[in-house]
Amino acid sequence: MIEMEHMNQTALLESGQNKNLKRIFSGIQPTGIPHLGNYFGVITSWVKLQEECNSVLYSIVDLHSLTIPREPAVLRENILDITAVLLACGINPQKCFLFQQSQVPEHAQLGWILGCLIGIPRLEHFPQWKLKNTSQASGGTVGLFTYPVLQAADILLYKSTHVPVGEDQILHLELTQDTARHFNKKYGEFFPVPKALLTTTKRVKSLRDPTSKMSKSDPHKLATVGITDSPEEIKLKFRKAVTDFTSEVTYDPERRPGVSNLVAIHSAATGLSKEEVVQQSTGLDTAHYKAVVAEAVIEKLAPVRNEFKRLKEDRSYLEEVLWSGAEKARELATPVYWEIKRLVGLH
Amino acid sequence: MIEMEHMNQTALLESGQNKNLKRIFSGIQPTGIPHLGNYFGVITSWVKLQEECNSVLYSIVDLHSLTIPREPAVLRENILDITAVLLACGINPQKCFLFQQSQVPEHAQLGWILGCLIGIPRLEHFPQWKLKNTSQASGGTVGLFTYPVLQAADILLYKSTHVPVGEDQILHLELTQDTARHFNKKYGEFFPVPKALLTTTKRVKSLRDPTSKMSKSDPHKLATVGITDSPEEIKLKFRKAVTDFTSEVTYDPERRPGVSNLVAIHSAATGLSKEEVVQQSTGLDTAHYKAVVAEAVIEKLAPVRNEFKRLKEDRSYLEEVLWSGAEKARELATPVYWEIKRLVGLH
Repeated sequence: MIEMEHMNQTALLESGQNKNLKRIFSGIQPTGIPHLGNYFGVITSWVKLQEECNSVLYSIVDLHSLTIPREPAVLRENILDITAVLLACGINPQKCFLFQQSQVPEHAQLGWILGCLIGIPRLEHFPQWKLKNTSQASGGTVGLFTYPVLQAADILLYKSTHVPVGEDQILHLELTQDTARHFNKKYGEFFPVPKALLTTTKRVKSLRDPTSKMSKSDPHKLATVGITDSPEEIKLKFRKAVTDFTSEVTYDPERRPGVSNLVAIHSAATGLSKEEVVQQSTGLDTAHYKAVVAEAVIEKLAPVRNEFKRLKEDRSYLEEVLWSGAEKARELATPVYWEIKRLVGLH
Repeated sequence: MIEMEHMNQTALLESGQNKNLKRIFSGIQPTGIPHLGNYFGVITSWVKLQEECNSVLYSIVDLHSLTIPREPAVLRENILDITAVLLACGINPQKCFLFQQSQVPEHAQLGWILGCLIGIPRLEHFPQWKLKNTSQASGGTVGLFTYPVLQAADILLYKSTHVPVGEDQILHLELTQDTARHFNKKYGEFFPVPKALLTTTKRVKSLRDPTSKMSKSDPHKLATVGITDSPEEIKLKFRKAVTDFTSEVTYDPERRPGVSNLVAIHSAATGLSKEEVVQQSTGLDTAHYKAVVAEAVIEKLAPVRNEFKRLKEDRSYLEEVLWSGAEKARELATPVYWEIKRLVGLH
């Protein structure tokens, strides 16, 4: 069974000693500008976590993004984009370790060692493998097949105690937990078994099909709101959002998924509860309501967008942030990996 | 088709310009004291190669040895043992790069990147996987399955042009060659496609079953002569060597494999041809001949054994050799890996 812990943010804030005992690791792939769903989900929760815990590592996991073929120039730009986005959203390198995975050699090194403990059959069950493997003409690669091993290394390299996970990541964390236990049994107690930190994230649906999640890879351009979209783009996308034939604002995700998605976004953008935004919007027809939600999103994202544009013009600053983040991360990783090498007999 | 090159040692020695164009990589697993077969095979050929080529890398591939479960203390000792053996046999760190694989982080790092280019089906055909996978109770691990990928990284990390291979390694080199071509096609011409250097090594058979190769893992203790065995052990093993009922010295591997193996060992130990040692031994019965061969082996190995013992008492010297070897290897690896990262878009 997976070990979990529901994040009780107030409790975390109040117990000073707890704050020091947690080490949190999380990774994000550099796959382009995040969308509203990412923003209200993982990014917002990352910003909160850096305030609540004093040992938090956020890694831009570029090695993972190689598991799907990418253009080198695009990947390079995506790494700087996601760095700028995270900083613009409030990730503060003084409060957390923000770094690029490939700049810390110990990730791949520990990945190899852990791979020598993990059986092949274990990896065959990962849904990502089944899905992406069959969708790729050439068949899946070793990288795609073994990335859960690298993910375990990402987490264990820092002796992380907690990992924020969405539901689709539980299988991955279970592998990491089992690998930690396996290592500890074989080489002596060393790794904490990291726990899942189930954050209550807000789910944002596609504006074109409110029954499915908003997604970067949605073929319909109007379905997904990027967090650096211009006000005009945002207005257009909300104006075209799919709703239903009842021109009234209510929250009923089962029967009225389209309008309810707008209410959820409205609530997330304003910080008001869903009830409050519904009450505020009494009497508005859906067309007007879409404009109201678009305005709320534009207002919320305006500082992010401006800061992103400013940061993207200063590439050397972004590179400097990544370098110094990697240096800090290596200070943690080096002694841990050194000890791992000693335990397994490499020195 | 695999690209090969038969090593013509005289030709190599004579052509000064060729000497500079070759970069040779070879690895050896730290799995205990090598035996006579290893000595007259790979080790002797390594000693020759360092004289003939001026860019030769020999790696103690400890990361590969993790693919089979090992006791950490044993592995640690094995790494120092093989270092001492190689030095005692004449490997000269002034003439080659002798280093421990795990001390050069770029091996595992490049392994990850290359794994993102290599399809899973390609690895399923490796006989080592089929063999070891089925023989292990827990099923094979990711490490065991993917070690040919790491091997490709070992070779390509130094832009090696030539790799000494035995016949059982041709499949591995083919994977490395195809990976180099694949990378070059995708990211632009970068890696030389390394060629096989087919060395003519002398084959030494088991002293208990002269139809099979001498092997470290032979369950019969008398079958295998370790190169640091004491003179008494060597005498005993040869005295007990399986021959046939004809008490005469001839070389006829088909019909008289036992005596012919002794002749081959005798020839390798003395540097005389097989015809010469047969001629020298005319009139000897097999029992006497065994004593003669044992003496020749003892004489050949005495300086190796003494030097090994001396070196093993100086652990800090052995560690120093490995450290400075790794430092030199990193000087080659770092700029290559840096350029690879740039090409794939990681920076």
